[in-house]
Amino acid sequence: MSLSSQPIGIFDSGVGGLTVAHALTQLLPNEQIIYFGDVAHHPYGEKSSAAIQSYAVKICEMLLRQEVKLILIACNSASAVAHDLVREYVGSRAKVIDVINPMIEHLRENFNHQKIGLIATRATVNSGIYHQKIDTLGLGIQLTSLAAPLLVPIIEEGNINHDDFKQILHNYLSHPTLQDIDALLLACTHYPIIKDQISQFYNHKISLIDNSEITAHAVKNLLEYHRLLNPSVLTPQHQFYVSDYTESFVAHARFFFPAALHFEHYPLWD
Amino acid sequence: MSLSSQPIGIFDSGVGGLTVAHALTQLLPNEQIIYFGDVAHHPYGEKSSAAIQSYAVKICEMLLRQEVKLILIACNSASAVAHDLVREYVGSRAKVIDVINPMIEHLRENFNHQKIGLIATRATVNSGIYHQKIDTLGLGIQLTSLAAPLLVPIIEEGNINHDDFKQILHNYLSHPTLQDIDALLLACTHYPIIKDQISQFYNHKISLIDNSEITAHAVKNLLEYHRLLNPSVLTPQHQFYVSDYTESFVAHARFFFPAALHFEHYPLWD
Repeated sequence: MSLSSQPIGIFDSGVGGLTVAHALTQLLPNEQIIYFGDVAHHPYGEKSSAAIQSYAVKICEMLLRQEVKLILIACNSASAVAHDLVREYVGSRAKVIDVINPMIEHLRENFNHQKIGLIATRATVNSGIYHQKIDTLGLGIQLTSLAAPLLVPIIEEGNINHDDFKQILHNYLSHPTLQDIDALLLACTHYPIIKDQISQFYNHKISLIDNSEITAHAVKNLLEYHRLLNPSVLTPQHQFYVSDYTESFVAHARFFFPAALHFEHYPLWD
Repeated sequence: MSLSSQPIGIFDSGVGGLTVAHALTQLLPNEQIIYFGDVAHHPYGEKSSAAIQSYAVKICEMLLRQEVKLILIACNSASAVAHDLVREYVGSRAKVIDVINPMIEHLRENFNHQKIGLIATRATVNSGIYHQKIDTLGLGIQLTSLAAPLLVPIIEEGNINHDDFKQILHNYLSHPTLQDIDALLLACTHYPIIKDQISQFYNHKISLIDNSEITAHAVKNLLEYHRLLNPSVLTPQHQFYVSDYTESFVAHARFFFPAALHFEHYPLWD
């Protein structure tokens, strides 16, 4: 098997990374995806950095055994605390890309001197990584961020059209931290699922920036640069591995990938 | 060390079991507690039965190495799906008690022919275990149950006096399933933390039954029966182990055990 026809490995703690995987397969329909959902440790957003780092390394070991050509960290919490470690650990065995650096590049190109709000999990906000990287750009982008820890459980619960959910979302978005912003950065891969509801809150008047399509384009550029785009025109068979097999994960995966048939329970530590 | 002076092992996926541990130390101040919080896999309520069972066995291995005289499963989700397995696995090496059977005994003694509502995690409700055990009693207790999956993340978030929380709680308790009940069974060890708010909803007019004190009394009876109560009058030093060390867990543990000093990170699989 030539290098370019090898699969792309994607991981997240659960269903959030499926938004990125979906955008990627829309943009690059010839690429085969091997998706690892670390459902046993979901949600990453409330775990310690050390824990997320150890899970990331074990997942990468597994993906490397599947001979992936690229590993995509499709989770902001894991990107925030484990990207450097994963790059070091994977070395030359595969390319590595996260969801944060492509976003920073996108902000650099499009949002100079604007005021940007950010919502994310506690792990991502506490890491301070978006602030640090944006400050390093030196382009006058003002960033204000808010941890919104109840959004992931509500999205997972599938209750996003319920009034309770709208009220909680409304309260987060009304927070003083997020006032007078030009754009809102959805810094959790779960959030594209509620993009319509967030856009309604703002009467569709501010830009919402999410990781999914931006990361998909960054993956395309990286593969092009290294001549690793899959030349095959056969429909690829994506594979889904989970560290805990739950109906909720399978339902979400089938929502994004209706043809998804291959689910496998793969405990990380057995 | 004599058998009676050995510690009691208690486990849960996180902070919920602390409500039971706290009730136990109030009732039996001479007993030393070794508490295991499986924070790395929190919350159990949304995990598969097989996953919860495998975590329970690994935690019991660890507690048995600490020579506990009794293992208390201080989590309804784990009690629902892993109690039989844990009893079988532990065998004669220690006594085993869960939080469900003491509750059933309490209902048998006090709630014949009453209509009881139950709220719990999805894992506990889906297990059907309370229904099955209550039906077996044949005492005309009518049980209706509702999964309330957002309560645990909200309690963990510490936002229980916020209007959003009150609205969500109100919506759960207003559900048709829970109307015209004589008592409400709080079948998750997190829920005693919001007992006041639940009682307010009912204008303090119905009984709220929670696991913490009922389980503590059952432990006392079991230890008495087997002559295993600790005769020492020295203040015991409780120990807390966590599979992931988070500030949130430590803060909750210090709330229930202000003198708690000994926290140790104990990854289950390293």
